[in-house]
Amino acid sequence: MGPHPAVADVRRAVRLSLADLAVPRDVAESPLVLVACSGGADSLALAAATAFAAPRLGLSAGLLTVDHGLQEGSAGRARDVVRLAHSLGLDPAEALTVTVGTAGGPEAAAREARYAALSAAAGRLGAAAVLLGHTRDDQAETVLLRLARGSGTRSLSGMAEVTGIYRRPLLGLGRERTRQACDALGLRPWDDPHNEDPAYTRVRVRRDALPVLEAALGPGIAEALARTARLCRDDADALDEWADSVHATSRGPGGELDVSVLAGVPGAVRRRVIRRAAVEAGANAAALAAVHIEAVERLVTGWHGQKGVDLPGGVGVVRRCGTLVFAVDNLSLA
Amino acid sequence: MGPHPAVADVRRAVRLSLADLAVPRDVAESPLVLVACSGGADSLALAAATAFAAPRLGLSAGLLTVDHGLQEGSAGRARDVVRLAHSLGLDPAEALTVTVGTAGGPEAAAREARYAALSAAAGRLGAAAVLLGHTRDDQAETVLLRLARGSGTRSLSGMAEVTGIYRRPLLGLGRERTRQACDALGLRPWDDPHNEDPAYTRVRVRRDALPVLEAALGPGIAEALARTARLCRDDADALDEWADSVHATSRGPGGELDVSVLAGVPGAVRRRVIRRAAVEAGANAAALAAVHIEAVERLVTGWHGQKGVDLPGGVGVVRRCGTLVFAVDNLSLA
Repeated sequence: MGPHPAVADVRRAVRLSLADLAVPRDVAESPLVLVACSGGADSLALAAATAFAAPRLGLSAGLLTVDHGLQEGSAGRARDVVRLAHSLGLDPAEALTVTVGTAGGPEAAAREARYAALSAAAGRLGAAAVLLGHTRDDQAETVLLRLARGSGTRSLSGMAEVTGIYRRPLLGLGRERTRQACDALGLRPWDDPHNEDPAYTRVRVRRDALPVLEAALGPGIAEALARTARLCRDDADALDEWADSVHATSRGPGGELDVSVLAGVPGAVRRRVIRRAAVEAGANAAALAAVHIEAVERLVTGWHGQKGVDLPGGVGVVRRCGTLVFAVDNLSLA
Repeated sequence: MGPHPAVADVRRAVRLSLADLAVPRDVAESPLVLVACSGGADSLALAAATAFAAPRLGLSAGLLTVDHGLQEGSAGRARDVVRLAHSLGLDPAEALTVTVGTAGGPEAAAREARYAALSAAAGRLGAAAVLLGHTRDDQAETVLLRLARGSGTRSLSGMAEVTGIYRRPLLGLGRERTRQACDALGLRPWDDPHNEDPAYTRVRVRRDALPVLEAALGPGIAEALARTARLCRDDADALDEWADSVHATSRGPGGELDVSVLAGVPGAVRRRVIRRAAVEAGANAAALAAVHIEAVERLVTGWHGQKGVDLPGGVGVVRRCGTLVFAVDNLSLA
């Protein structure tokens, strides 16, 4: 008798995600993959599946769990996860204790501290990959959260399957599958009370918005949002490639852009090139909004001798001799 | 004292939308613009604003209203709209009676009959434009409906400001503005009971989904969705331009595609080129799904001598001598 279908699904997802790292099983030093595990159903199912699948690909597998120190009993829970990891055969298994700051709000601060600790541990242990337990439902929530910002194709592309050392093998699976897998394996996931706290936007999206969308629009909204994310990612990648090539063609030795090249490409590409040049000149990427980029664009498409444009980060842009010149603001922009 | 701010907003939107049609006011034959008006608040405010703005741009303005014959009293309501049009100075003003079929469901059938009648009347009257009353809220609903299909950038771009003879001047305005404008002008809009009938997906999106999204994600979701639509439209236009150019480069005399050209461009562009070639060869565009296009793509990116791919509409694709050959199915694809 084979494994429970949910267990098989999670294992298959892990195997596919790690296939490119596989080595013959008699290699002395097998590459290490680490599972980032909170003890919740998603990352617990991921840990169990990785413990099963990694050795069959010639890989060794370990686990990291992060103690944010924000909830009563978090240190004990981290120890429980490490114990469970050992029982699954995951080695090394470490609890990482972090101090969460306040910058950007509690969710962002916790995320930043978590990823800093995971990256440092992965580096120290020489890991080839760190696996994250995000599912298709997390992806759908992310796309909805991004939608609310109205911020375009790249933003709608959600979370990537691979970002640097991080991999997300479960983006194609629904959350109910990881819980079924835990049940089938007799693993007891920890249900983080934060996941039910409506003070968090993501919790409201999960608990209120997605069920109502499903009722209004029909079943399958999470799959649809995840599919949207994939399509948007491909489109954003293609447009970035185009913009890179136009940037290289239009860029002069001082970083200035040739207006005639910019005038000849579609707006979506032109605005991406302008953004690249602005960031290269020192503009603040996070604060650069559509309204800034469009003001610079009008120096190309709506030129009537208007004055320069000031960008966040102290960068000014003027049109001069058929080029857009990006300069730090203490230089003359006359 | 100027007009009410809502009235001014609607007039400004109409003026901007029609600016490119403006002629000197002493031209004997002034171009005609027609407002498509149901009698609802959006198109009623649009009609009043067009009656005001069009003459100031040297344009003459008329009105069309469609009697779908689906509701008790629809003929009388259409006559009321025509009478009101005359009182606003709109001339010609016509009620168009249509017969609604059943193909594609009641909403799609009514829409098809309505646009066929509007296009025919616009042609007969020699109109330069037909104005539609869709607002930013309609656009937000459209984007959410498209999201539920998970169908990518072009689909998420929603309704265009200009499509052929049709223009949508109000896509930047919230629905509450048109109602305020009607109130300020003493116009009594007709509230279509269909707009409250939860049998329609769009009604459920408006009544249930958008308010819950707004509560979960914060105010401004309609603006954010409309902004997403604009960004996606620009991206989709740019990628279509790229795909057109790659299609022209890779296409042989019989419509076959050069595999080496397809292999060198990003997936988002490659799949668009494959779709163009498939439709050109006679595949059914409406039935062509991502799964079909991806199977053809694997003849380029995952080639291991596999057999051809059958597409809806009786078109088969095979790889032969470094090209993808698209052929109707009764030819040999061996």
